Amino acid sequence: MSQLAQPGRLLWAEGSWEEARQVVLGLPYDGTASYHAGARFAPLSIREASQSLEYFSPEEGRSVDPVVVHDLGDVPMRFGRPEPFLAEAEEVLAGIDQAGKFPMVLGGEHGVSLAVVRALRRRREELFVLQFDAHADYRMEYLGERYSHATVMYRVAELVGHDHVWQLGIRSADEAEWRAARQLRPTLDVAEALAAIGTAPLYLSVDIDVLDPSVAPGTGTPEPGGVSFRELLQALRTVVASASVVGLDIVEVCPPRDPSGITSLAAAKLLRELTVALQAKEGSARRAP
Amino acid sequence: MSQLAQPGRLLWAEGSWEEARQVVLGLPYDGTASYHAGARFAPLSIREASQSLEYFSPEEGRSVDPVVVHDLGDVPMRFGRPEPFLAEAEEVLAGIDQAGKFPMVLGGEHGVSLAVVRALRRRREELFVLQFDAHADYRMEYLGERYSHATVMYRVAELVGHDHVWQLGIRSADEAEWRAARQLRPTLDVAEALAAIGTAPLYLSVDIDVLDPSVAPGTGTPEPGGVSFRELLQALRTVVASASVVGLDIVEVCPPRDPSGITSLAAAKLLRELTVALQAKEGSARRAP
Amino acid sequence: MSQLAQPGRLLWAEGSWEEARQVVLGLPYDGTASYHAGARFAPLSIREASQSLEYFSPEEGRSVDPVVVHDLGDVPMRFGRPEPFLAEAEEVLAGIDQAGKFPMVLGGEHGVSLAVVRALRRRREELFVLQFDAHADYRMEYLGERYSHATVMYRVAELVGHDHVWQLGIRSADEAEWRAARQLRPTLDVAEALAAIGTAPLYLSVDIDVLDPSVAPGTGTPEPGGVSFRELLQALRTVVASASVVGLDIVEVCPPRDPSGITSLAAAKLLRELTVALQAKEGSARRAP
Amino acid sequence: MSQLAQPGRLLWAEGSWEEARQVVLGLPYDGTASYHAGARFAPLSIREASQSLEYFSPEEGRSVDPVVVHDLGDVPMRFGRPEPFLAEAEEVLAGIDQAGKFPMVLGGEHGVSLAVVRALRRRREELFVLQFDAHADYRMEYLGERYSHATVMYRVAELVGHDHVWQLGIRSADEAEWRAARQLRPTLDVAEALAAIGTAPLYLSVDIDVLDPSVAPGTGTPEPGGVSFRELLQALRTVVASASVVGLDIVEVCPPRDPSGITSLAAAKLLRELTVALQAKEGSARRAP
Amino acid sequence: MSQLAQPGRLLWAEGSWEEARQVVLGLPYDGTASYHAGARFAPLSIREASQSLEYFSPEEGRSVDPVVVHDLGDVPMRFGRPEPFLAEAEEVLAGIDQAGKFPMVLGGEHGVSLAVVRALRRRREELFVLQFDAHADYRMEYLGERYSHATVMYRVAELVGHDHVWQLGIRSADEAEWRAARQLRPTLDVAEALAAIGTAPLYLSVDIDVLDPSVAPGTGTPEPGGVSFRELLQALRTVVASASVVGLDIVEVCPPRDPSGITSLAAAKLLRELTVALQAKEGSARRAP
Amino acid sequence: MSQLAQPGRLLWAEGSWEEARQVVLGLPYDGTASYHAGARFAPLSIREASQSLEYFSPEEGRSVDPVVVHDLGDVPMRFGRPEPFLAEAEEVLAGIDQAGKFPMVLGGEHGVSLAVVRALRRRREELFVLQFDAHADYRMEYLGERYSHATVMYRVAELVGHDHVWQLGIRSADEAEWRAARQLRPTLDVAEALAAIGTAPLYLSVDIDVLDPSVAPGTGTPEPGGVSFRELLQALRTVVASASVVGLDIVEVCPPRDPSGITSLAAAKLLRELTVALQAKEGSARRAP
Repeated sequence: MSQLAQPGRLLWAEGSWEEARQVVLGLPYDGTASYHAGARFAPLSIREASQSLEYFSPEEGRSVDPVVVHDLGDVPMRFGRPEPFLAEAEEVLAGIDQAGKFPMVLGGEHGVSLAVVRALRRRREELFVLQFDAHADYRMEYLGERYSHATVMYRVAELVGHDHVWQLGIRSADEAEWRAARQLRPTLDVAEALAAIGTAPLYLSVDIDVLDPSVAPGTGTPEPGGVSFRELLQALRTVVASASVVGLDIVEVCPPRDPSGITSLAAAKLLRELTVALQAKEGSARRAP
Repeated sequence: MSQLAQPGRLLWAEGSWEEARQVVLGLPYDGTASYHAGARFAPLSIREASQSLEYFSPEEGRSVDPVVVHDLGDVPMRFGRPEPFLAEAEEVLAGIDQAGKFPMVLGGEHGVSLAVVRALRRRREELFVLQFDAHADYRMEYLGERYSHATVMYRVAELVGHDHVWQLGIRSADEAEWRAARQLRPTLDVAEALAAIGTAPLYLSVDIDVLDPSVAPGTGTPEPGGVSFRELLQALRTVVASASVVGLDIVEVCPPRDPSGITSLAAAKLLRELTVALQAKEGSARRAP
Repeated sequence: MSQLAQPGRLLWAEGSWEEARQVVLGLPYDGTASYHAGARFAPLSIREASQSLEYFSPEEGRSVDPVVVHDLGDVPMRFGRPEPFLAEAEEVLAGIDQAGKFPMVLGGEHGVSLAVVRALRRRREELFVLQFDAHADYRMEYLGERYSHATVMYRVAELVGHDHVWQLGIRSADEAEWRAARQLRPTLDVAEALAAIGTAPLYLSVDIDVLDPSVAPGTGTPEPGGVSFRELLQALRTVVASASVVGLDIVEVCPPRDPSGITSLAAAKLLRELTVALQAKEGSARRAP
Repeated sequence: MSQLAQPGRLLWAEGSWEEARQVVLGLPYDGTASYHAGARFAPLSIREASQSLEYFSPEEGRSVDPVVVHDLGDVPMRFGRPEPFLAEAEEVLAGIDQAGKFPMVLGGEHGVSLAVVRALRRRREELFVLQFDAHADYRMEYLGERYSHATVMYRVAELVGHDHVWQLGIRSADEAEWRAARQLRPTLDVAEALAAIGTAPLYLSVDIDVLDPSVAPGTGTPEPGGVSFRELLQALRTVVASASVVGLDIVEVCPPRDPSGITSLAAAKLLRELTVALQAKEGSARRAP
Repeated sequence: MSQLAQPGRLLWAEGSWEEARQVVLGLPYDGTASYHAGARFAPLSIREASQSLEYFSPEEGRSVDPVVVHDLGDVPMRFGRPEPFLAEAEEVLAGIDQAGKFPMVLGGEHGVSLAVVRALRRRREELFVLQFDAHADYRMEYLGERYSHATVMYRVAELVGHDHVWQLGIRSADEAEWRAARQLRPTLDVAEALAAIGTAPLYLSVDIDVLDPSVAPGTGTPEPGGVSFRELLQALRTVVASASVVGLDIVEVCPPRDPSGITSLAAAKLLRELTVALQAKEGSARRAP
Repeated sequence: MSQLAQPGRLLWAEGSWEEARQVVLGLPYDGTASYHAGARFAPLSIREASQSLEYFSPEEGRSVDPVVVHDLGDVPMRFGRPEPFLAEAEEVLAGIDQAGKFPMVLGGEHGVSLAVVRALRRRREELFVLQFDAHADYRMEYLGERYSHATVMYRVAELVGHDHVWQLGIRSADEAEWRAARQLRPTLDVAEALAAIGTAPLYLSVDIDVLDPSVAPGTGTPEPGGVSFRELLQALRTVVASASVVGLDIVEVCPPRDPSGITSLAAAKLLRELTVALQAKEGSARRAP
């Protein structure tokens, strides 16, 4: 009965683990959300939204190759403090990386990025992190917690080096974060960051709230004054084309705040575009005749 | 990595096809909805809602045995006229029946029940159908269509015999239907039906709109004046305990009309209670010490 | 092109003004709403909800006769203080009454009932009013206003006599109202009221919030602890069968607070049931063979 | 009682059939919706939204002339396969066209455009079609169906000629469609299309999803990365000013996905602007002093 | 300018700290929610809903005395693990208790009850706890956490003694909880519990999900098959009249899941009724003439 | 217990009346709303949304100084005709002005601006008014009412002089308004207005519907085709930097139409930015090191 549909699978993730080069993993954790919780429902919601999209990307001029994408499912949801969840996720991600596959993570809150960075760092001496976000998330600690969506980039920076974290699109921070961050930029201009990163391995972290709240209302802490979908897509495509991306996440989609579903849909389309762009770079995508 | 969670799977469907005695199948079709469409999203939504429930049923005094429940996924969604979808669903269901497993169907609109009845009828000379519903769905045709949520029980009756269809909880019909139906009752009193059915094979079809709109607002055609969740549950448990049920469906949940999710949740809990009750009858459920 | 559908017409209001015995009129006014405004959208919303119902009433055992029901449309919406709107509505209603037709009013907030009572009182020396409501609406004035949803029954009582107003289902009032009202009852028990009213002309005013908020969440001031749809329907049918009803309204449906539409639907079904019951009493309904 | 308001009528459609030059017709069909159904509710919802607008267009510097606009109502809703609905709609539209009036169609899903093109083609040897849309809708067939929202423009092209269909704003298609379509453009740049069309009769079809999902969330298949309201309005005004438009539609508004109502409102304002622009071109609009 | 309204204050909490006998305190914590988070918004939402209610209780025949009720505000929201929040809340509550005032707590998730019990236990050798709830919340630990909404009653029982915790209305538990709990009852029948408790100090904890999901959809983990508002209110009034209640909470209202606001409203009305009943018992309420 | 949080207070309004230089006041009136009412809930909703923002403004490069901002609460809600509410609000505002403090008003519908202008005019011979709005609100009267959201700017102009009212961003008006208004501009270009105003005292009135409906769906009368958040913010910062602003309001936020809360959030962020900008101009803001 192989013709049946597996409910809750990403549209274009038709490959088996063995044949896959890109592996999708959901990290449904939102235990430190300080405003609207609900990102735990995002992995399923983004997968469902993908059902309304095509395989073909007009921008890239080619279709996603579904045979080399595998959907591994989710790390089981937990609540309370993040450490146990992060530890479990890190192990799964290390397995993906060790198998030579490219992890595509669906958060969850931004705190889950730490698990991916830890896993990728295991086998790499140097790792850059490029963050698209409305918020700096660069506090040393937040409300007495070291691990939180508001501190995640500081934790990441401790791991990879403060000069290895670039932050784009930032329009909210507290005064201390703002003054401490050296590579924080309010725009999406990627040129400076890409020049600094060069060909070193790069982790790409996309907080959906970098988009304007009109485009992405369904997020834990929307921040007025963001960028358009096209602006973000253009920046991401430039990054994939120019840098050596080794993993990525899309985080902070909050389905309970998204009555028309357009935020999950934006995340699903970004994921498709990133997948096609990565496959194009690999030279392995099904090339149009 | 077997510890990962499969997104969109029913909580307690942990068994493989081989070991399963109960098999869950989604039929996400809603092409003939005359008021609010959206039942195509119900199979995924009911599975997601199941995540908030327990394995244990206080009413039955035992837990569901997850090892003997398999979630087969969904027949792929189609639109337009129902025949091709019904044909494909019938084949899948015949396979389940032939393997000696009990089908538990998640609609979709009520029209999908026809596929299940057709499949079960293949190997049985006699089959009763017991319908819990607000609407008779007993028109000979509707707006020129023979196959529709509004005609499904007439089609079913043509197949199993008009005297083999019992309809309970009905509170809406057109005048012709009302006068034509012989075994249509406005209450949930199951005694008369069960007496007539005896130990013959019985198919159980539950349209969620038999519940009051306050309890199940998320349905295609809510009808004021329905029953409470407890009344429905009590009737269903009596049926399972007394009759020889060989298959069942829960249909007409419409997630886009269910902002608080309580309709999907009611369907999920009914499914759990029916599963535990069936397993208890089999004598195979994990018995409490 | 008479086969076209008039958008926004009540399903069963197919008659012309000339042939009609029942006339539906919308009074979309909500200018004095003290909590959630939005009842101005109710006349259209109730008409739209009627499209999902049947013509046939199982309870009455007969169908509505659509040829004798005319939908006159709405008195144009106004805001600010109620007097101008009430005056205009009164004139339209006096015209309906003078033509010997039965007015069925869709509010709007409860304050609009005053216009109907004034119109009906013009040609009747005695008029009883029977109110189904969660709130007494019996203040002498409210926040300095004489005309308001919270004072309407006091204004009505000044017109028809305090002993001519009966209030059923009341579960909220301020202490003064509660002590002043003589014919206020917390239940729907209609016997006492009907005995007092006898065969005198009776106006029936149904505030949808007499229903429990679970059944009718979409109302301006929901009040926990109300009755079920069946209880209300049973009481209303008894009133129509026993008394000489000369007009009625259904008020305080608030569509913006009704995301699943079940409140508008409850109002539409009450209207159908009242219409069938009235027609049955007239002896003019299409009698089932 | 002519001062009463007809519920569910377009604000500025005050004219009778006889005096009208523009005729509004609703086509509430959504039977082939592959993602979110609900466009059947759009004609009423757009009319209701029009109530919050003015008659005056600052962009055009003149008011709509309501005396020459007639609202004909809706072709009655049907479900199941589209052919019977399309046939009935085509007859009504042929009647409008034969009477020398300009049809303004409110969908319904995009499939309804076929009925309008068929009707207009009856009396014209040549007809261009200009489509504003996110999706090409240019499949030869879709899921085994010839008539569907996803194939409508291929069906239209079979009728008027593939070189007579221009598609603007397209940002989603499958790979085959994309390669087959010759006059498909991702932008709203109308110059090339208008040059090719010249003064030949032109049908204008506006799928509301050409707008960005932030502007028009309430649509069946929103597609991230669309245009702003102003960009669309500017393009449409250029078309009306330059070409010989003989009919138009606005399709795919899906009210159940539009909790704030801004999509219906966008459609209503586009309709007003198109009406004023057409009247201005006719020289018949009430000219400002 | 004392005539101004303090936004976000409970309607009837007009008293100062000094004159108050009942003190309202919000505990906006929901960090361990396992399904829908959002209870952190409940204290403000319940206060806002109280604005639509009266001071007068028809059931009690008297009005709340607002002069002896003080609204202390909220313990500041925290996230992550619950211990720091619980510790801070306990101190505030100990202060209320030490001042001889009666604490009325608005959760937050059910876990916050532990803080109140700890505070009240400081000055009492014996304390009973009576819980109205759909879920037993009686796990020894949950997902590795000791402090959680799912374990709170076990923690409470460790403090006051397992035989001092009574649980009513329970309809969901895991099998181990169900077998372990000795004083767990599926109904609201209070007689047995009240007999056992006698005149010992009693803490009353009301999880709003004891109500049916139709009545209280806005809660973190709705459970089908619950009680009506009237049944709950009747049970609570009996408890207050018969036992020596020394504090209470209403928890698990989840405003983001409550689109019509009826859950916050139910909580607000329960709070008013409990306040009037307590004041009546004290003999200090404003007595009706 | 000063560490407790006052529910419903603006995040950064930590100052007492005595030390405050900016005073926040809510005017929850929406009695003349002609389309969607609900602005009465805006003051509380904007305050709640402020909780998700930071104190620091990256655009201004400094944090708000919370010690000099006091939240005075709300003028109590009224309904019906606006005069009594406006009179009461005017007295409160005159008190603020007389104390030498800067009023920051949260509406409420636009009609409340009249109260502020009246209060500020008492002690100033000349006062300019600069309005950012989608609608001119410049009718002489509307539906027979002199005081209304649709006439407010005409009333204001009668008070300060028609040449002292500047209107920016206007994209909707009736034909008479459009022709009568001399200083009405469809763009946000502030240069001309600022040149005319010079250093005279200026009142700033921001109707949130000047933003595009995608950015601010939650408003009483959304109007397609508006400006982005960034465009509005830039214009407002220019005004504060250049002119002598003596008071301001943000009006027409309608929370019941704002399911994702982004409209209240936009208002809250505008308020923070205006506050920081004003404090920067005063030279009194906490200057970053």
